[in-house]
Amino acid sequence: MKIVCNKNELAKGLQIVSRAIPTKTTMSILEYILIDATGPEVKLIGNDMELGIETVIKCDVMERGYIALGARLFLDVVRKLPETDVTITLGDNSIVTINALKAEFKIPGRAGEEFNFLPDIARIDGIEISQYSLKNVINQTIFAISAGNDTNRMMSGELLEINSDILRVVALDGHRIAIRKINLSGSYPSKKVVVPGKTMSELSKILEDSTEKKAEIFFTDKHVMFSFDRTTVVSRLIEGNYFNIDQMLSSDYETKVSVSRKELTDSIDRATLLVKEGDKKPVIFEINDNDMEIRINSTIGSMNESIDINKQGKNLMIGFNPKFVMDVLKVIEEEKADIYFVNPKAPCFFKNEEESYNYLILPINFTTV
Amino acid sequence: MKIVCNKNELAKGLQIVSRAIPTKTTMSILEYILIDATGPEVKLIGNDMELGIETVIKCDVMERGYIALGARLFLDVVRKLPETDVTITLGDNSIVTINALKAEFKIPGRAGEEFNFLPDIARIDGIEISQYSLKNVINQTIFAISAGNDTNRMMSGELLEINSDILRVVALDGHRIAIRKINLSGSYPSKKVVVPGKTMSELSKILEDSTEKKAEIFFTDKHVMFSFDRTTVVSRLIEGNYFNIDQMLSSDYETKVSVSRKELTDSIDRATLLVKEGDKKPVIFEINDNDMEIRINSTIGSMNESIDINKQGKNLMIGFNPKFVMDVLKVIEEEKADIYFVNPKAPCFFKNEEESYNYLILPINFTTV
Repeated sequence: MKIVCNKNELAKGLQIVSRAIPTKTTMSILEYILIDATGPEVKLIGNDMELGIETVIKCDVMERGYIALGARLFLDVVRKLPETDVTITLGDNSIVTINALKAEFKIPGRAGEEFNFLPDIARIDGIEISQYSLKNVINQTIFAISAGNDTNRMMSGELLEINSDILRVVALDGHRIAIRKINLSGSYPSKKVVVPGKTMSELSKILEDSTEKKAEIFFTDKHVMFSFDRTTVVSRLIEGNYFNIDQMLSSDYETKVSVSRKELTDSIDRATLLVKEGDKKPVIFEINDNDMEIRINSTIGSMNESIDINKQGKNLMIGFNPKFVMDVLKVIEEEKADIYFVNPKAPCFFKNEEESYNYLILPINFTTV
Repeated sequence: MKIVCNKNELAKGLQIVSRAIPTKTTMSILEYILIDATGPEVKLIGNDMELGIETVIKCDVMERGYIALGARLFLDVVRKLPETDVTITLGDNSIVTINALKAEFKIPGRAGEEFNFLPDIARIDGIEISQYSLKNVINQTIFAISAGNDTNRMMSGELLEINSDILRVVALDGHRIAIRKINLSGSYPSKKVVVPGKTMSELSKILEDSTEKKAEIFFTDKHVMFSFDRTTVVSRLIEGNYFNIDQMLSSDYETKVSVSRKELTDSIDRATLLVKEGDKKPVIFEINDNDMEIRINSTIGSMNESIDINKQGKNLMIGFNPKFVMDVLKVIEEEKADIYFVNPKAPCFFKNEEESYNYLILPINFTTV
């Protein structure tokens, strides 16, 4: 195998597929990236068996072949090469020579045969969405998954649900639920899959902030595939039935508060200084007629601050995990946030009128804390 | 005590004096910052008993007094306050109230009497230097100290040596020496002190990059004081005799190489990718007539690269700890670096003609590694 390609093009491709490389693994081949130059173009592939990423790079293939190289080292070496054409040559004993100007690296590779290729997924019945929307909807929900949850695998994934021209993305962890809806440009058959959180979060890092550029999503019984630009992301699905979200939602409320997102964010941000890591101290909202008092009281000290609100309904005192409220405030784009409360023990909802987002947070019973 | 001051002014002052706060200590009072409003102006003081920093901030003193507050929390709280005037009031039981707009913090302080003030040092016979020069000379030498060296405390400090109108700053760790000379604008009596490395490195972070602004340095038998802007940095000295540097230096050489600093830096930077943390692999310089080959060979792989040089004297093959060479290359400002060699076992020198800098590095015997 012998290929010649631009250093930046190669570095960009390696950075994309490196997102499928596990940080810890007992199967060392998973830490490798395959250079697949068996055809007329060059593909780079990373695959941890749950998540696989493949990208095509602009490259001259002088001699066909394939070889796997340690992902971390390969990326580091390419990044530090001079900004010029890079020649990669496979020699005897799987030794790979990387040349750029007068610099020459020799690194042992692993035979391409050892590498796990991605599953073959047919590109039929895909749905189309802008990269911007897909990236955003992931970032606006992913924080609510329970990432390392091995006892309830479902909570470690995100629900993608398609109904006609609506894509609904849901994440939850037992204390909160994040729901976002997106209008699709076409109408599609119903679909409901749960994608591992790691897949979604790595995917969001590769997608561009572009409303022009599209991504396509394809499904099989066991896999989902995201295809965009010259990159393909394939992931196993989490099998089983997702939670029945709709029965957890309610549109009844006793108190509705409209508040400046920035003011509430700044106030809770300040209050959080008094909460030690691991400490379960709630931030208290005391909702009065025209203002809401934000209060926290811990072993470190106390804070209180009143912020102006528009209120409908009853006065209320309620406590929350400040992190959960901050996570929601960070991903609301509107200047005003509307919050719906029932009572100090019932979940509250951050949502807008068209319900393109709906965030549920369970309160903390602060009298007993 | 009651004071009112601008949030940013207060945050800036706290950031400066926080540099004297130890990260770990068994004496909890050392983790506090004193607000000293006993006079007409407000001083902030941090003091870890070896290094003390005091700075005066613009502030209205409504009621005189003093109180110590936990450094970390105080700085965090002030940083997150709205950009406005901040009122700090001392109440009963050493409880401090911090108000800004509608936000109010209550934090327990420690009585000012518990705090260790800085030693009183007379501002006489000081030397004057620009903040830029002082900041730079520290950054250009400090890397060569042996920071945590408890068996040889001398190596954990920097020598400041004044001879007439020359300030010489020296750092060494047993494998290398860094020497910088600066011309002072006046002529001063001879002086030779060793300042703890921590003092020098914290000082360099507070000094501004300004050639206009001056710093003054004052000495006593046990202390050194740096005075600039509205800040005073006082430090204990390391007592004892510093190493006899001059007998370690030599101007004889067998080989002189002139090389592009950037090319050599880039090449060693690449080579270093193949060195694992803690691994003592040398980078080999093979000096030929018109080029120098940079080589490394480790369990990870190998690299070689030839770079153009101007050479005087003999050919030579010599090995170095790549980190030591990089540390020097980073702080040389010239485009070309001149390196003087004797033989593969003798130290080499990176220096310019006027010897405003002179960096000695011991080679590694690469045949035995």
